[in-house]
Amino acid sequence: MSPGLLIVVSGPAGVGKGTVVRRLTERNRDIVFSVSATSRTPRQGEVDGKNYYFISREKFEDMIKNDQLIEWVEYCNNYYGTPKELVFREIENGNIVLLEIEVEGAINIKKKYPDCVLCFILPPDFEELENRLRGRGTETEDAVRGRLARAKEELQLISKYDYLIINDNVEDAAERFKCVILAEKMKTARNKSLIDKYQNI
Amino acid sequence: MSPGLLIVVSGPAGVGKGTVVRRLTERNRDIVFSVSATSRTPRQGEVDGKNYYFISREKFEDMIKNDQLIEWVEYCNNYYGTPKELVFREIENGNIVLLEIEVEGAINIKKKYPDCVLCFILPPDFEELENRLRGRGTETEDAVRGRLARAKEELQLISKYDYLIINDNVEDAAERFKCVILAEKMKTARNKSLIDKYQNI
Repeated sequence: MSPGLLIVVSGPAGVGKGTVVRRLTERNRDIVFSVSATSRTPRQGEVDGKNYYFISREKFEDMIKNDQLIEWVEYCNNYYGTPKELVFREIENGNIVLLEIEVEGAINIKKKYPDCVLCFILPPDFEELENRLRGRGTETEDAVRGRLARAKEELQLISKYDYLIINDNVEDAAERFKCVILAEKMKTARNKSLIDKYQNI
Repeated sequence: MSPGLLIVVSGPAGVGKGTVVRRLTERNRDIVFSVSATSRTPRQGEVDGKNYYFISREKFEDMIKNDQLIEWVEYCNNYYGTPKELVFREIENGNIVLLEIEVEGAINIKKKYPDCVLCFILPPDFEELENRLRGRGTETEDAVRGRLARAKEELQLISKYDYLIINDNVEDAAERFKCVILAEKMKTARNKSLIDKYQNI
C-alpha cells in the first residue's frame, strides 16, 4: 500500500478554511481531518473527539514531556496540540491527514517533517476577506480590525508554503485542493516502490 | 497574466500517451500540444502544422545553428526538433505547452529549463504494456520485442521525472494529468506576483 500524506493547511480567519476542508473530507473518504487535543474545557455543543480531544492539563503536559505531539502551543492559559499517534497511524494506513495549523506552527512542522505539504488558502483579494469577516456580523469592529491585522502578518509568510489555493468559491477551492493532493501522490519522490517494481522487470 | 508552463511528457510505446494528451488538450483550451519540426517528407495523410512542421534539411540546420530549437535529434537520417519561438510565445501568453519527447531528450530539457515539469506515463503493469503492443496487431513479433526492450531502458530513467501518471484508462489518466498541471500552477514558487500583491497591502 502506498503511504499516505501529511497536509498542513493555513489561512487567515474568514477565508473559509473550515468549509473547504469539510467539502474535501466529505467527498474523499481517504482524506481525514486530524482532531487536535486541548486542555481547555468544552464549550456548549462541542463534542469530545470531534471538535477536540478534551484532556486534562496534566495529561497534556505528560504528552509534551513524552514527545507525543507533532506541535503544540499554549494560548490564553490553555494547551492546544496535535497527537502524533493518531496522525501517523492514518498515514501508515495510506490515508491523507489534514492538519489545520496557524502559520508559525505550520512552518515548524515543515522543518520537522519535510515530507509534509503546506497549503495556504487565500481569499480572491484582501477586500473580499474584509467583507467576509464583517459579513459574519458576529464580531466587534475592533475584533475585525484585529483579525485583518493578523491576516496581514500571516500573508508575510506565504512564500514558505508549498501551494497557494484561492478560495473564490468553495466548490472550486475544494477541487483545487484535491488536485494538489493527487499531484503530490504522483510525485516521483513519493513512489519509490512503484519505481522499484518497474526497474526490476 | 500568470505565465504559462512547459510540460514534457514521455512514456513507452503502447502506453497511450497520444490518446491521453489528446483528451487533455480537447477539454482544456489553455493546454496546447506543441507540434515538432522535421526534415523528413510527409507520409500519406500527414498535415503540415498538425502532425509536424515539414521543413527542408537546410532550414533545419539553420535553426540548429541559430539556437532556435529547444531540443533536436537526428534519427534515420532525418531531423526532429521543437522550435523555441512557438513554445515560448504560448507560455508568455499564459498557456500550458505540452511536448512529447523521449526520455533522454526530456532529461536534457529539464537541465536547460529547470522550471519545466517532466511527466512520465506508466502502464498499470508491464504485462498490460505487452498486451497493448501486441493488441495493435500492426507490428511483427520482432518489432514488439524491440519496443519492449526499449521500454525497459526508458523505465530505468523514470526517477528523473517529476511525476508518474498511471494510464489504466484514458479518462482517469487525463484527469490525473490535469491535476498535475493545476497543482504546478498553484505552487508558491510559480506565483511571485500573487505573493507580491498580498505582501504589499
